[in-house]
Amino acid sequence: MSSDEQRLAERVSEILYAQDRTSRGLGLKLEEVRPGYARMSMVIRPDMTNGHRIGHGGMIFTLADSTFAFACNSRNESNVAATASIDFLAPSYEGDELTAVATEVWRSRRSGIYEITVTNQKGERIALFRGRSARIEGRVVNTD
Amino acid sequence: MSSDEQRLAERVSEILYAQDRTSRGLGLKLEEVRPGYARMSMVIRPDMTNGHRIGHGGMIFTLADSTFAFACNSRNESNVAATASIDFLAPSYEGDELTAVATEVWRSRRSGIYEITVTNQKGERIALFRGRSARIEGRVVNTD
Amino acid sequence: MSSDEQRLAERVSEILYAQDRTSRGLGLKLEEVRPGYARMSMVIRPDMTNGHRIGHGGMIFTLADSTFAFACNSRNESNVAATASIDFLAPSYEGDELTAVATEVWRSRRSGIYEITVTNQKGERIALFRGRSARIEGRVVNTD
Amino acid sequence: MSSDEQRLAERVSEILYAQDRTSRGLGLKLEEVRPGYARMSMVIRPDMTNGHRIGHGGMIFTLADSTFAFACNSRNESNVAATASIDFLAPSYEGDELTAVATEVWRSRRSGIYEITVTNQKGERIALFRGRSARIEGRVVNTD
Repeated sequence: MSSDEQRLAERVSEILYAQDRTSRGLGLKLEEVRPGYARMSMVIRPDMTNGHRIGHGGMIFTLADSTFAFACNSRNESNVAATASIDFLAPSYEGDELTAVATEVWRSRRSGIYEITVTNQKGERIALFRGRSARIEGRVVNTD
Repeated sequence: MSSDEQRLAERVSEILYAQDRTSRGLGLKLEEVRPGYARMSMVIRPDMTNGHRIGHGGMIFTLADSTFAFACNSRNESNVAATASIDFLAPSYEGDELTAVATEVWRSRRSGIYEITVTNQKGERIALFRGRSARIEGRVVNTD
Repeated sequence: MSSDEQRLAERVSEILYAQDRTSRGLGLKLEEVRPGYARMSMVIRPDMTNGHRIGHGGMIFTLADSTFAFACNSRNESNVAATASIDFLAPSYEGDELTAVATEVWRSRRSGIYEITVTNQKGERIALFRGRSARIEGRVVNTD
Repeated sequence: MSSDEQRLAERVSEILYAQDRTSRGLGLKLEEVRPGYARMSMVIRPDMTNGHRIGHGGMIFTLADSTFAFACNSRNESNVAATASIDFLAPSYEGDELTAVATEVWRSRRSGIYEITVTNQKGERIALFRGRSARIEGRVVNTD
């Protein structure tokens, strides 16, 4: 990886993050981004729990899905999620600080596969997410 | 289905909904619940969009996941999501009104499979969600 | 559906079946094909069982996957499986006659989603399969 | 890992393999087994191809699913596949020698998650498989 690729990944993620009202509204922090990689964190707020009084699966998924998005757009080729699956391994609770790490497993011209692991502040795995991206027209940063 | 089962499904869903701070915070409406079935709606607010300025996949998933939860808890046996997968079929936009319908495909003593279809206000399908529930200890409504 | 589309679906499936050495070798029968739909059957032979002496999951998957292939190629546009998931609901045993029914859930220019239900001779559901197809170059039947 | 655990994994896999008529019939070789791990290989025979004249997805799945089974039964606790998903990354052809490696990602009392990577003789990845196991009654080897 060249420093140019790293700089591009950082510029892309700044623009995406500035526009990503969901991630900002939920307090997600983008901790690190590299080509094909992203790491984000989120604290489970009271309004992120569900009817069983545990972290809502949708909020866990959203954290993982945002991290997936930063990873699969990091090369400045626009990509969206085509399909994703999630395994919930353990419950999370109000106040927990979750970290999601997205790594690129495979990439072709039109598609990519990413694995995202979500852990809590004790290092326990909360969820495993696998997403398949689809390339769409356009770029995030205009590099012409 | 007896009217007792229907009444129980309604009581369970009232309690779950009252405690489900995520669904309430995102403005989800529980439109209908029956044993093994639920229907909810959600309007895509500006703070539910992503870096590509379309509905955030995590918000679509959250709508489907909540609808899944109301369906799989409707018989007053506590269930949580063990695993789920989602196919994103078409983008959604700010202001779109999405409806999710959850139907029970299969159910055993310990597990169940539910399909949730998410459509927009034009009846176009936005996402298909399949969830597998795991039975946990306890009931939502104390019926002793 | 016109009778032309039906005739084309039948011609495509004849050619595919003649070339599909796996389906023929395992004794799969193509019972019915229509545009976007296929039905196949398979008897669990002794050599289709696994170490727990039940029908091997790979054989159940193969039946579903072949049925998926006949459904998603039925319009004479070549398609392959991009991704698939399967839920195993009940075991099957030597001598069981399984039937797989594939229906088209959604289709775009480049992709399609199909659901395949596998039942045994008592009508009990054995497995649920969901596949996503990807369009590739070419056609099965030359219609020029 | 103690040498006792390794010996048990080997005894379990010998018994399972002897009974696994599908794996033996398809010529699968069990190359290595350890607690929570298995590696198997398979050559794509002419009768493992499909209507597009490439390796049948069901045969690739079967290789991965068998490898999954040897890994998730390796601790002498009987387990079956509850659900599995597969991403097909590249086609395989008659004569290709495929290798599947199963690793344990997570394990609880009642369930486990395994990832299986299938590569060809050039080291190219053909498919990624993720399986979730469900514990059933019984053991493979009687250790009383």
